[in-house]
Amino acid sequence: MGITANNPDRKSWLEIAPESDFPIQNIPFGVFLTKENIVTVGTRLGDFAIDLGALQQLGYFEGIELTDDVFLQDTLNDFISDGKKTWRLVRNRIADIFDAENPALRDNKKHRDVVIFKMEDVEMQLPVFIGDYTDFYSSKEHATNVGKMFRDPENALLPNWLHIPVGYHGRSSTIVPSGIPVHRPMGQTMPADATTPVFGPSRLVDFELETAFITTDANIMGENIPVNEAEDHIFGMVLLNDWSARDIQKWEYVPLGPFLAKNFASSISPWIVTMDALEPFRCEQPKQEPAPLPYLQQEGNHAFDINLQVAIAPENTEETVVCNSNLKYMYWTMSQQLAHHTINGCRINSGDMMGSGTISGPTEDSFGSMLELTWGGKNPIPMKDGTERKFINDGDTVIIRGYCKNDTIRIGFGEVSTKLLPPITTK
Amino acid sequence: MGITANNPDRKSWLEIAPESDFPIQNIPFGVFLTKENIVTVGTRLGDFAIDLGALQQLGYFEGIELTDDVFLQDTLNDFISDGKKTWRLVRNRIADIFDAENPALRDNKKHRDVVIFKMEDVEMQLPVFIGDYTDFYSSKEHATNVGKMFRDPENALLPNWLHIPVGYHGRSSTIVPSGIPVHRPMGQTMPADATTPVFGPSRLVDFELETAFITTDANIMGENIPVNEAEDHIFGMVLLNDWSARDIQKWEYVPLGPFLAKNFASSISPWIVTMDALEPFRCEQPKQEPAPLPYLQQEGNHAFDINLQVAIAPENTEETVVCNSNLKYMYWTMSQQLAHHTINGCRINSGDMMGSGTISGPTEDSFGSMLELTWGGKNPIPMKDGTERKFINDGDTVIIRGYCKNDTIRIGFGEVSTKLLPPITTK
Repeated sequence: MGITANNPDRKSWLEIAPESDFPIQNIPFGVFLTKENIVTVGTRLGDFAIDLGALQQLGYFEGIELTDDVFLQDTLNDFISDGKKTWRLVRNRIADIFDAENPALRDNKKHRDVVIFKMEDVEMQLPVFIGDYTDFYSSKEHATNVGKMFRDPENALLPNWLHIPVGYHGRSSTIVPSGIPVHRPMGQTMPADATTPVFGPSRLVDFELETAFITTDANIMGENIPVNEAEDHIFGMVLLNDWSARDIQKWEYVPLGPFLAKNFASSISPWIVTMDALEPFRCEQPKQEPAPLPYLQQEGNHAFDINLQVAIAPENTEETVVCNSNLKYMYWTMSQQLAHHTINGCRINSGDMMGSGTISGPTEDSFGSMLELTWGGKNPIPMKDGTERKFINDGDTVIIRGYCKNDTIRIGFGEVSTKLLPPITTK
Repeated sequence: MGITANNPDRKSWLEIAPESDFPIQNIPFGVFLTKENIVTVGTRLGDFAIDLGALQQLGYFEGIELTDDVFLQDTLNDFISDGKKTWRLVRNRIADIFDAENPALRDNKKHRDVVIFKMEDVEMQLPVFIGDYTDFYSSKEHATNVGKMFRDPENALLPNWLHIPVGYHGRSSTIVPSGIPVHRPMGQTMPADATTPVFGPSRLVDFELETAFITTDANIMGENIPVNEAEDHIFGMVLLNDWSARDIQKWEYVPLGPFLAKNFASSISPWIVTMDALEPFRCEQPKQEPAPLPYLQQEGNHAFDINLQVAIAPENTEETVVCNSNLKYMYWTMSQQLAHHTINGCRINSGDMMGSGTISGPTEDSFGSMLELTWGGKNPIPMKDGTERKFINDGDTVIIRGYCKNDTIRIGFGEVSTKLLPPITTK
């Protein structure tokens, strides 16, 4: 079954700006709330939100085997459980419905009125219920940079790193969509010159530029997902800002890993861009030397060429771009991450989220965190308003954007934009 | 409002063996499946499972503000969300219903027939949907033992350990109730004499003797739960076997903590014993020196005197007890764990589970893992069948039991009993 939705020549009867992240070749999935307080699964075309629940009720998905009211829900989990074949059929059908040549919806004002919303009139929700959130650590440049700063500059990369897509478990309860502000965390830190720890607001709040993929339920407990089947169990991707408090992290993370330094908030972009939509942007991953163990070896191209950008907007002033990176730099691929995650029989559910780890590229302006960009605060970054930043200030908004582009199409993720607020007073 | 359910003099009209873990002073909560495939919230008295959904429908909870059909569900999450006052009212009422002097249900055979099941006729389920699972590391003896073996014997306890109830995130999707067998995990390890890692079944599968507490939804993102309020947000406790693969753990855990070494399975006992039921067994926690930061300081007694035992039953032979420990040895209390977990504003939901960490006591026979009991495999433990164990063999069943006892009552947790099966062949 072809991915007809990816046809680069297709135009929509909806007006879509040429530089939009959401042309008819994208067709992401999300969940939105209307002004009438109705929650529905939707897609986005240009600046329009499309109610897929209404489309289903009006019969536009006839012929596709779908659970009743699978889109009249407040999460995508059940739709994702329907599997890759169904995702593709639905996405192809949506492209047909909005194809410039198709009059069915185009010429039916009554239907259009209940199906199409302006983006400004809806409020985006978390697209999935995330049962488990795993974060990987798959950028060689990031792992090397952090190793140099936190551990031994001579042996920055730990012995296991080239053999294992290192990962750890994160907190699901504090994952929020773009637009929801987060509070600077309070916590315990050990100042450089102190002998006992102190309590107070974190002084080193940082972003982490990441992407994340969303899985379907793929195995039972005890079973693994082979690396060459792994991509079939990935529904799509979002942008992820994995907020980090570096001073809390430094004091707490040995020996069991980051905990309160990370679990106060993780922010994601609300539209899940499908792996089908990203297919034209598949590219070669970095060469892996030494060769990984056979369960991690794969043929073909499994990296994706996704341009990523981070900007900081101080309160009431214009933003400054602080980082330009790309997902293609990652050493470990998403299929290797998922194969590794399940090689011990770990069960994966629909809606689970797996973060890439901070995406740092080879150049200094492609580092995916303030920790690396300012090299631990040593080299502050000038803002357009004349101030400078070592880390993130209260009132700053951090914006991550991502898009793919080739000669014929551009598809994007939109953004994850999050304002950092001061701490809530401790009770 | 008193905890009248704890009255030690009360007897039930149901026949309950004197040494049962489930006298009328216990009244735990769980979820079970009947032979008619009906799932319901229940409690247990002796060897009887009580259908609380049926009791509610028959009007036995009249006068208590309860959500409609809050017990006719497949998890306890909604009931837990109702809060401590409701938990106490319901538990007190159940004690009344089964009080020897109360004829209402006792003398109504029609009602008894739909409310009371034999334990052998029901199948226990997970009692809650666990959104997030956190595991702490709060036994000083365990942290010291592991530090001696894995790191530096001279500085076994890391600098942060006496200041922070160290914790990390675990995997929710692989938490299973007692009785569900688990498979030995496959994985990557670095043998002592090797220069490249190898792939195969873990050779060092271990149990970890833990308890865990179940929370209610207690805060919004950004807010903390003060240490002196923390216990109000804990519904109750279960026994936890946090399965661990020591060889996988050793190779993967630096720098981000345990991942595949732990997330293949965690087993819990199916009945949640409430904090109200455990109230008579409150006791003094170990003295904390140095004093923790103020947000972790608390007045009064916050430890609980819970006897714990681990036994190994090789296939087809009788069990051997390998460990006797007690929760009261833990350095950090549950209220300190919950206060620390939320000091950064981390949101806690109804049904979240927080493990104590391995509970090792001061004597060698009270260590809570084979790693410590055999000191890394150096001192194998003889089994009653003539074999010996360094770690857990395929076919072995690991059984954790727990109970509290004073001069007048004994209440227990039942057990978490789990058979270790060989790995499923890797695809």
